[in-house]
Amino acid sequence: MKILAIDSSGLVASVAVVEDDVLQGEYTINFKRTHSEVLLPMLDALKRDLQLDLQSIDAIAVAAGPGSFTGLRIGSATAKGLGLALGKPIVPVPTVDALAYNLYGSARLICPLMDARRNQTYTGLYRFTEDGIFETVIPQKVCAIEEIIEDVNRLGEAVVLLGDGVPVFREAFSKICRVPVDEAPAHVNKQRAGAVASLGLIRYKEGKAESAADHRPEYLRLSQAERERKERLAREAAENPCGK
Amino acid sequence: MKILAIDSSGLVASVAVVEDDVLQGEYTINFKRTHSEVLLPMLDALKRDLQLDLQSIDAIAVAAGPGSFTGLRIGSATAKGLGLALGKPIVPVPTVDALAYNLYGSARLICPLMDARRNQTYTGLYRFTEDGIFETVIPQKVCAIEEIIEDVNRLGEAVVLLGDGVPVFREAFSKICRVPVDEAPAHVNKQRAGAVASLGLIRYKEGKAESAADHRPEYLRLSQAERERKERLAREAAENPCGK
Repeated sequence: MKILAIDSSGLVASVAVVEDDVLQGEYTINFKRTHSEVLLPMLDALKRDLQLDLQSIDAIAVAAGPGSFTGLRIGSATAKGLGLALGKPIVPVPTVDALAYNLYGSARLICPLMDARRNQTYTGLYRFTEDGIFETVIPQKVCAIEEIIEDVNRLGEAVVLLGDGVPVFREAFSKICRVPVDEAPAHVNKQRAGAVASLGLIRYKEGKAESAADHRPEYLRLSQAERERKERLAREAAENPCGK
Repeated sequence: MKILAIDSSGLVASVAVVEDDVLQGEYTINFKRTHSEVLLPMLDALKRDLQLDLQSIDAIAVAAGPGSFTGLRIGSATAKGLGLALGKPIVPVPTVDALAYNLYGSARLICPLMDARRNQTYTGLYRFTEDGIFETVIPQKVCAIEEIIEDVNRLGEAVVLLGDGVPVFREAFSKICRVPVDEAPAHVNKQRAGAVASLGLIRYKEGKAESAADHRPEYLRLSQAERERKERLAREAAENPCGK
């Protein structure tokens, strides 16, 4: 079973191909260039270097949110375009789950932290059971950093942090967190399409695929434009309660 | 601190750039094409996509063996060439250590298995302590598969396997191994230059760099040509003890 995977949910642009238990290739770039410029050329390079016939893939896994609104739209649009053209299904993989899956078999509770701005984080809590089963303790959510630290304190287990939110929220953890805290090193601390592909393969086998036409990213909260519009409408309604 | 890393010790060709705790980029290909054809073009693609000035790197980390003899020579020759041209030191990273480091923070004993042919494996045993310290339990070595399984049995801890030797030695483990065995999934079960870079950065800070001129790969055993020559000389000496 062959999975093509895409992650452009954060600062990282990443593409990978996994066939069963073999990572055939992965290209990951964490650089200031925009995903819309780099993602397809990266996929093209990978396709060329693997002499990959795109028709040979079974499904396209995509980091389906939360994350950067623009990044998610680029990832999902690319996946949808490929899925429609190739007639292949899409396997949406929750971004925070895929981040956590980087730390396969971790002894600690895994706490991915993505910076959602406004002192908020996209986060969740995960662990691997003794049998190596990947378990969601708290599903991905957007919340204040204090909320997830309280979740961690309540569970009382040593935790490992990863994601672009780590430098942003390091100080909050050192102030409020009451369990031992570790930070994952460079090679496993950010989005990687390889992890999306591995998890996508499991989810595909569980029947969690959808048609390219149906696929939508999961933003978890309103975009800034939608939020501001809502606030403006509420303000106008308050200032002019009779609608005059 | 910025590290350029190369791994061509096995079937995988991989290049990466890590700056402190950020993986700036990684390109990994596991395909039948020869490393001598793909490694430098992959590095060139990474350099272009990161707008990387090679003079900005502090050191070149290389998976320094054991592994495929030809693969190691390509990796070390590339690292030496770059090191000499740029005036940068080389950080040799033991291949088996770097493989194990893919499973950062693992709850299990980590047992990388590289197929060394003739029923032998390049292997070792590693663990992460409760404080997240990466510990070598048995340093990398070449041995019969039965020997490393007995090492695992003696330690009596649940183990996780990774590396290209897993499919080769799976049956031996299921027959002889007396502890629970897990196998790492695709995104973390083979050589990755990102892991070489992360570990290379630690080793560079520990002063484990050498000059490009001094660097030699560590084969751990004789090449087939050397072995056959030695056997032939021993045979000739036995047949003709007086040297006539």
